[in-house]
Amino acid sequence: MKISVIGSGNVATHLGNAFYRAGHHVAEVFSRSREHAALLAERVGARAVTDLADLSGDLDLCLIAIKDDAISGVLSALKPALELSGGILAHTAGSIPLEILKGNARNCGVFYPFQTFSKFREPDFRELPFCIEANNRETFQLLEGLAKGIGGKPYGIDSEQRKTLHLAAVFAANFSNHLYVVAEEMLKEKQLPFDIIRPLIKETAEKVMQSSPFEAQTGPALRGDLDVLESHLSLLGDYPGLKQIYGLREIYKLLTESIFRQHRNL
Amino acid sequence: MKISVIGSGNVATHLGNAFYRAGHHVAEVFSRSREHAALLAERVGARAVTDLADLSGDLDLCLIAIKDDAISGVLSALKPALELSGGILAHTAGSIPLEILKGNARNCGVFYPFQTFSKFREPDFRELPFCIEANNRETFQLLEGLAKGIGGKPYGIDSEQRKTLHLAAVFAANFSNHLYVVAEEMLKEKQLPFDIIRPLIKETAEKVMQSSPFEAQTGPALRGDLDVLESHLSLLGDYPGLKQIYGLREIYKLLTESIFRQHRNL
Repeated sequence: MKISVIGSGNVATHLGNAFYRAGHHVAEVFSRSREHAALLAERVGARAVTDLADLSGDLDLCLIAIKDDAISGVLSALKPALELSGGILAHTAGSIPLEILKGNARNCGVFYPFQTFSKFREPDFRELPFCIEANNRETFQLLEGLAKGIGGKPYGIDSEQRKTLHLAAVFAANFSNHLYVVAEEMLKEKQLPFDIIRPLIKETAEKVMQSSPFEAQTGPALRGDLDVLESHLSLLGDYPGLKQIYGLREIYKLLTESIFRQHRNL
Repeated sequence: MKISVIGSGNVATHLGNAFYRAGHHVAEVFSRSREHAALLAERVGARAVTDLADLSGDLDLCLIAIKDDAISGVLSALKPALELSGGILAHTAGSIPLEILKGNARNCGVFYPFQTFSKFREPDFRELPFCIEANNRETFQLLEGLAKGIGGKPYGIDSEQRKTLHLAAVFAANFSNHLYVVAEEMLKEKQLPFDIIRPLIKETAEKVMQSSPFEAQTGPALRGDLDVLESHLSLLGDYPGLKQIYGLREIYKLLTESIFRQHRNL
């Protein structure tokens, strides 16, 4: 496929590289910053573009891979050339409905990789879930094939389901990570290295790769071990450095009660 | 080393097997249930014991690997033979101080593997942190060597630090897992398979294997993206099946505010 990538952040970069490796022709990379556009463009043999009006219309796919709240701004500046050439206009955003693209192209879709991307980590594309949505069957199949071609696993997900996925990700990824931060700060208070808890964090995630997290639950909250719960609450007052973590005792109490009640149907 | 293992649960079983594989002589396995004692004893070529009075005193190590709150009961029934033979009496409990063992043996210690063990998963002992404490230098070194011999990484941790580790584990493991449960229930509401979020959970944990979780934080709470936060809060009211999860909206609000404030020093 002949593809232009709008954006030069983590998602744009990792997808651009993956398309290139899979043998697609990445034609153009757009970023308002010439430096950023050039960085990705050079790696994938594309042309760096800093003005949306300079994008060619002769494309199979124009993929908008920028921050969710910047998409509407790009759309208003995007010329309707795709309309004429019959290519696909798609975005990679978790929280933006498909509808937003409909004024700009006849064939439009969503190509949302359900993963967290980091600048310095190469993502594992094998089995990476891609949430696909399109306004017609042919477009859906082309996006599905694109996901498979880079090793991913396509799922047909409508805009309503995508919102739920986005919210679930906040709990499972952003909030979990904050709990790692709490642990990190707590260990620092007692001069303990974060290294000591890394295997436990890894295994906690690994355990739910096969089983259901509900069945994998362990700990004093599950057992309703009041002695331990009380000693933990009193211990939580003993870390002067943890005052910077807002609501620490409330987080402990709320999550403990939530675990306790769920496993007793209360 | 000639070792007797008190207990037949996950910790006792995985440690017993690891000692056996490393070439130690596992002499006895104690459980009140003959069936449970026999199950582990047969695998490691040990004698199954169901009465604490039948344990031999002629040991290098008697390791108590049972639930934290059952330890004092075992100690009162344990004969003081170790006192005479000079072996080590140790326990594997996160929340029990070393002191509790002092009346039962001259050489006593703590051998606490800082990991979550499951019945059906073989733990990875490479680099597994062992929190070691002892009442004398020689005992400390013997327990340190035992941990290294089965592939683990020993840390000298006193009872005070161990309490903090135990609490940090509740946040990083038990509470994180409950957030996975929230995600699981949310996906069910929209007929989405849990499989779709597994790669994200895994990557979220993998990311902090090299970096600090504070630096790895992402998401709408970190960015202070009020549009997304508001739409998430309203979405949280839309899942009838999630009423069973106590405090769901409060968990969302509290963790969001905690992330937001921490990254702005508020």
